[in-house]
Amino acid sequence: METKETIAIGVIGFGTVGSGTLKVLWERQTEIERELHMSIQVKKVVDQDWSRERKIFIPPTMKSTDPQEVIEDPEIDIVVEAIGGISPAFEYVSQALQRGKSAVTPNKELIAKKGGELLEIARQNRVDLFFEGAVGGGIPIIHALKEQLVGDDIEEVIGIVNGTTNFILSAMSLYKLSYQNALEEAQRRGYAEAVPTMDVEAFDAAYKLAILASLCFHTKVDVEKVFREGITRIIPEDIEFANELGFVIKLLAISKKVNGQIELRVHPVLLPVEHPLATVNGVENAVYVKSKTRTLTFRGPGAGGEATGSALLGDIIEAARNIRFGCRGRVGCTCTCELAVRFIDHLVTRYCVRILALDIPGVLGKIATQFGEAEVSLQAVKQPVSTPGKLTNIYFLTHWASEANLQRSLERVRKLEVVRDAYAIRVEEGS
Amino acid sequence: METKETIAIGVIGFGTVGSGTLKVLWERQTEIERELHMSIQVKKVVDQDWSRERKIFIPPTMKSTDPQEVIEDPEIDIVVEAIGGISPAFEYVSQALQRGKSAVTPNKELIAKKGGELLEIARQNRVDLFFEGAVGGGIPIIHALKEQLVGDDIEEVIGIVNGTTNFILSAMSLYKLSYQNALEEAQRRGYAEAVPTMDVEAFDAAYKLAILASLCFHTKVDVEKVFREGITRIIPEDIEFANELGFVIKLLAISKKVNGQIELRVHPVLLPVEHPLATVNGVENAVYVKSKTRTLTFRGPGAGGEATGSALLGDIIEAARNIRFGCRGRVGCTCTCELAVRFIDHLVTRYCVRILALDIPGVLGKIATQFGEAEVSLQAVKQPVSTPGKLTNIYFLTHWASEANLQRSLERVRKLEVVRDAYAIRVEEGS
Repeated sequence: METKETIAIGVIGFGTVGSGTLKVLWERQTEIERELHMSIQVKKVVDQDWSRERKIFIPPTMKSTDPQEVIEDPEIDIVVEAIGGISPAFEYVSQALQRGKSAVTPNKELIAKKGGELLEIARQNRVDLFFEGAVGGGIPIIHALKEQLVGDDIEEVIGIVNGTTNFILSAMSLYKLSYQNALEEAQRRGYAEAVPTMDVEAFDAAYKLAILASLCFHTKVDVEKVFREGITRIIPEDIEFANELGFVIKLLAISKKVNGQIELRVHPVLLPVEHPLATVNGVENAVYVKSKTRTLTFRGPGAGGEATGSALLGDIIEAARNIRFGCRGRVGCTCTCELAVRFIDHLVTRYCVRILALDIPGVLGKIATQFGEAEVSLQAVKQPVSTPGKLTNIYFLTHWASEANLQRSLERVRKLEVVRDAYAIRVEEGS
Repeated sequence: METKETIAIGVIGFGTVGSGTLKVLWERQTEIERELHMSIQVKKVVDQDWSRERKIFIPPTMKSTDPQEVIEDPEIDIVVEAIGGISPAFEYVSQALQRGKSAVTPNKELIAKKGGELLEIARQNRVDLFFEGAVGGGIPIIHALKEQLVGDDIEEVIGIVNGTTNFILSAMSLYKLSYQNALEEAQRRGYAEAVPTMDVEAFDAAYKLAILASLCFHTKVDVEKVFREGITRIIPEDIEFANELGFVIKLLAISKKVNGQIELRVHPVLLPVEHPLATVNGVENAVYVKSKTRTLTFRGPGAGGEATGSALLGDIIEAARNIRFGCRGRVGCTCTCELAVRFIDHLVTRYCVRILALDIPGVLGKIATQFGEAEVSLQAVKQPVSTPGKLTNIYFLTHWASEANLQRSLERVRKLEVVRDAYAIRVEEGS
């Protein structure tokens, strides 16, 4: 055991998560110090703009606008990065690691894109880089995957990892709102940004999936290879049709190991109501992990300053413990193999297809024929009562089909004169 | 980092969990060794009876019937105890720790009753004692509570921690079986023992609650102080009444911090259908943790050789890592305070009461009067159509009442000439 008795912390970035972290740390400081047998001192908090109102008081001597005051301070043991994005977050974290400091960050984009590189820098400098808050906010999934589950032969990981889209889909489902109205409600509550692209087009979920897949399958994952489809095309009728067949609609981040390759995809799915993820509503997140020997679901808050702050606090305690016991770096990069990505064309599943077509005699036959020609067979059809000659949404549930055939069938259908639109949602069967 | 390159393991007790652990270890040995940068050698497996058929092959040179061959072997680094019970498991584990070996055990009774003592022996000898498999089988809840959540201000922990009783209640609910028939089905499937007392009278759940509460509230817990009530009195009609009001019936292990004291109770409850634990059916387990900053649910297999074996494997990897990095003992006992137990009399909740009474004029009034006199007011009543003059079950849902008043009301009701029985199930409101 080292003799160090005080752990000094520097925080770079003092928005929701940065301030949430310090709030929970200070509220529990006595208990944490008693548990760690060390005292904890927050030495410096860096932010560009100190004029904004904060929920907690920071003494003037602790405030700074210069990240180098944290990075270059030899007394600081642990750096908390909470500014987000790649640059300058990458520079700050890598410099801190190089100077022998452990680092804690909830930055999913940074970890998804630069995690391997940063973990290598941490290894070389024998320090810790922890990122529990990067996936699922307050859900302790990262350490579980890197430690308790590291020996598991994981077959699939499926997550509801974006609270904004889960809130929108839940609101559409529960209150029969349109996508637009549900989005506005999310914005009104502060769950969605004014420009919601990162969430609704599933960039955020793709980052998180890259991290999860990397940890579950012990392989480096290129986030650019994640197949990504957002939720903007979902309409309330889709949810209604799904419900009638015993499904809910969720935006899922899915990675499965199939024949030694890994699927990487984020898109809306029809999920059976009895699946453990089906009841996760609103901004809540959850991660479902299926290994050869156990199926686990971790459920909790996906965001929020204090919830995510608690995850960062857990990381800070972990990093402090490792300093006390002289074992920094005991859990580093767990990527021991390189798996190829199985692209979406090879997916085989059922599909829910919505086709907007003119309600004229023979339309159903024409559409069904196109599916048949593309070798996609149909399991269920729903054509609501509509006005002859007007446009109507016809719903199909296909049998198991390959994505390639399904896309081929959609192309054919779209070419029909009576058809205005064709949209497919994949089914996730569960196991 | 120490230079040790091979970790030697001894296993004492080779039943379902012991063999499950070695099965998952051997199946993933290459991957685990690559991750740990160490090789793992199972040196000795001890069991009293080697004539039983096992699912995996153990070389004759590895077999032993003498635990001392593991405990006294200076080459063995990690001892896996999988025999269960207090004696001689306590002696084996404590001797192993005293000889500088780390120990891994899924033995809930041992940890519930002797965990504090064993963790102190581990601390003195600077070794690890891990028990991830002791609660929730394959669910990684123990390490999460001791590490990532150790800084959380936890307010309540609620678990479905006994698969047998959860299976029985699920079967009663889904297939309208009587308790007896559901128990027999559980026995037929190997989920319940021939003498099912440990499970159905909630002794098993009480051990697990003592462990959970101790970790969540950082206090020693006397398992004898857990209020315990089994499921043998539940009848299908109870479940039906609960369902009508939007509840399911579950056997829950509950510990809450109230005014600086902790509640410790295991009993059947009416749980709102929307609670994250309400959809956990069959032998599945789950643990729900609510802290000041986050509400988490961990769900997964509660038993099974390979699922629990995976939890033990996670512990073995953790123990091996700590040997490699020279940091054994980095997470020890987390009990830093001593909280008093809040006894069941002080509970305030709603109750579902079933009263078996003669269907004669005025009976409802007589019963209702007794509740009123005991200061328990009623929220809902259901008297099914029955034959006048015959016995019938009348159901009541009370308003919030203290346990003391509720018990007083039941005593009064039981004294009525027209009443044959009165049975109450507590409501768990969720939060």
